[in-house]
Amino acid sequence: MKTIYTLALSAFLLAGCAQKASQDAAPAGPMSATTNILGISYPKVNPDLSVTVRVDAPTADSVTLDLMKKYPMTKNADGVWEATTEPQVVGFHYYFIDVDGAYVSDPSSELFFGCGVMASGVEIPEEGADYSQEQAVPRGEMRTQTYYSDITQEWRRCFVYTPPGYDDGDTRYPVLYLQHGGGEDETSWGVQGRTDIIMDNLIAGKQAVPMIVVMDRGYAVDPTAKPTPDRRFANFNTFERVVTQELVPLIDSEYRTLADRDHRAISGLSMGGFQATSIGFGHTDMFAYIAGFSGVSPVREEEWNTAYNGLFADPAAFSQKIKLLYLSLGTEEASRFKMVTEFHDRLTKAGINHVYYESPGTAHEWLTWRRSLHGFAQLLFK
Amino acid sequence: MKTIYTLALSAFLLAGCAQKASQDAAPAGPMSATTNILGISYPKVNPDLSVTVRVDAPTADSVTLDLMKKYPMTKNADGVWEATTEPQVVGFHYYFIDVDGAYVSDPSSELFFGCGVMASGVEIPEEGADYSQEQAVPRGEMRTQTYYSDITQEWRRCFVYTPPGYDDGDTRYPVLYLQHGGGEDETSWGVQGRTDIIMDNLIAGKQAVPMIVVMDRGYAVDPTAKPTPDRRFANFNTFERVVTQELVPLIDSEYRTLADRDHRAISGLSMGGFQATSIGFGHTDMFAYIAGFSGVSPVREEEWNTAYNGLFADPAAFSQKIKLLYLSLGTEEASRFKMVTEFHDRLTKAGINHVYYESPGTAHEWLTWRRSLHGFAQLLFK
Repeated sequence: MKTIYTLALSAFLLAGCAQKASQDAAPAGPMSATTNILGISYPKVNPDLSVTVRVDAPTADSVTLDLMKKYPMTKNADGVWEATTEPQVVGFHYYFIDVDGAYVSDPSSELFFGCGVMASGVEIPEEGADYSQEQAVPRGEMRTQTYYSDITQEWRRCFVYTPPGYDDGDTRYPVLYLQHGGGEDETSWGVQGRTDIIMDNLIAGKQAVPMIVVMDRGYAVDPTAKPTPDRRFANFNTFERVVTQELVPLIDSEYRTLADRDHRAISGLSMGGFQATSIGFGHTDMFAYIAGFSGVSPVREEEWNTAYNGLFADPAAFSQKIKLLYLSLGTEEASRFKMVTEFHDRLTKAGINHVYYESPGTAHEWLTWRRSLHGFAQLLFK
Repeated sequence: MKTIYTLALSAFLLAGCAQKASQDAAPAGPMSATTNILGISYPKVNPDLSVTVRVDAPTADSVTLDLMKKYPMTKNADGVWEATTEPQVVGFHYYFIDVDGAYVSDPSSELFFGCGVMASGVEIPEEGADYSQEQAVPRGEMRTQTYYSDITQEWRRCFVYTPPGYDDGDTRYPVLYLQHGGGEDETSWGVQGRTDIIMDNLIAGKQAVPMIVVMDRGYAVDPTAKPTPDRRFANFNTFERVVTQELVPLIDSEYRTLADRDHRAISGLSMGGFQATSIGFGHTDMFAYIAGFSGVSPVREEEWNTAYNGLFADPAAFSQKIKLLYLSLGTEEASRFKMVTEFHDRLTKAGINHVYYESPGTAHEWLTWRRSLHGFAQLLFK
């Protein structure tokens, strides 16, 4: 059959395509980024954690790499532009290419919905980060749940992680609701965040109890309300209604959940951290575990005793209601996200029980959030 | 809470991003392509089905749109390049932008793994194609199944569609294996192909029996075998071993399947059509329903009576073994994929029972394949 296979292969190769990007397709070397399209060798991560990016743009006048900062690229004899960045902090970084003013993604990279577009990303491997690497352990599933929202009057989609063995019995599970950041979407925790891999490893190691994780789309527009300037960012109040009136009931009806506050957690990153904490603080009847990763719904000094029906006024009463409040931040983003540290300080000053985690050496990026999920998940439902 | 929401919104907007593509983000008009990033108004599909694309590239010398053919773009006063194509055939078209020799995807488009990269795509709506539109019907799930392959010695992922109600009972279901084309991957049938929507609608209308659909990655490399030039296209023989020795047993153990040949179908598009038919013809003990959409494993005249252990030598015996052989092709691709029509003619000449479907007005593209799935699925397991 070999001849036929070869014949057919050439006949069908890239069927339906105009042509493919003419990027170096040499076999990937050991340092090629794991975020590259399979078989593409650049970007490469160098031993000092700098990144070398190549872009094929023979007739361009100016090409710039935008990876945390802008790097002018230089053209070699083959018309391939190249730049090497400063050493990067470990983790996942979005990046873009500016070709004569066209701000585009790198055809060599798998793309990730972030920054409001499909963005290039490069993974700078974390030394010994087995917790987010695929291991030889039982694997759960990531499922899409499509539902019609009467509030937004549209079909919505969320992803639902079910733990290994979910289909094998009648066990009921607690649920963690996990929200993405601004410019990302319901796919982000599963792809950039490696939620299923992190949970599979934690559950296999008995570090976390088996749980369902729900990742919804953090944007919601009520068509009967006044339109917002950018539909993608929509309206947080509408999203709060979707979560509390539609999403939670849907998950409790479609999955074998433990449908009470003591078995429900809500968390998110950045914008999602704001959403998760404000929804959690406002609905302690629904959620007993609340977390904000690199983001939190700030409560000002002057409203400390009144906000959220006085939730923060009495530390003892707070601890009765909230089994765990978890806040986290990367050390490299601390200056930019003072609201998290300030809130942490206020909680401490007010004697309100909470966990505060600082991710060493990471920025407002996915490694901060993978580590936060890894830490938070171990404290849940115990 | 409104003030706080607004504050936080600005604080978290596009958190972690260098900047976002400076594309027109006016509210989407009625003709904005459904494949655009939400809130981005271009590309626009015009009433005559031509497509207008805009690219922001102020300092570029030359920008070309590549949508089925190349269209030079012209720059307006704002430095935005624009081109309008000829009227397009309905369906889903991949496209790219060439900016001074950089062959990239359009930041305004959701991207789809095709052509070996993350490609821009534009959907030209099909008049009254309700079968592939979300309807108010019970929805199934798309699940990821991650498995370790001893043959390829790597973790692999497939998508598994489970029909509505799968979790509500002990029913066992037949299984359709469905393969993507060259340059695409295991995500393609779920995204570009709308498999879950098509199946949900068919099952709700009682046009198809409830079934499980498995979409695996069509590339497999045996690391103990001689490396192939491009790892993405790998080796069909290795893929055949993965499907028959690992994937089918995995699905039968992880899902409530009817685990016999009479309840197993295998099909695919283009390269996947070649793979599906060659695997199906070679393993009639495993598959009773076989289809190739815009692709088939060709059997030459001279080997007609010997190929696949003489499967085609005896029409009566063939019909005993193969409950359905289904071939399809788009009328706009017929000249390019003669192998399908030639095989159809040979089958007819040899008196071998099969179904041949021609998709009117569609090319080697996803509308041909959505229609083919829609037609094929209705003939299965009855």
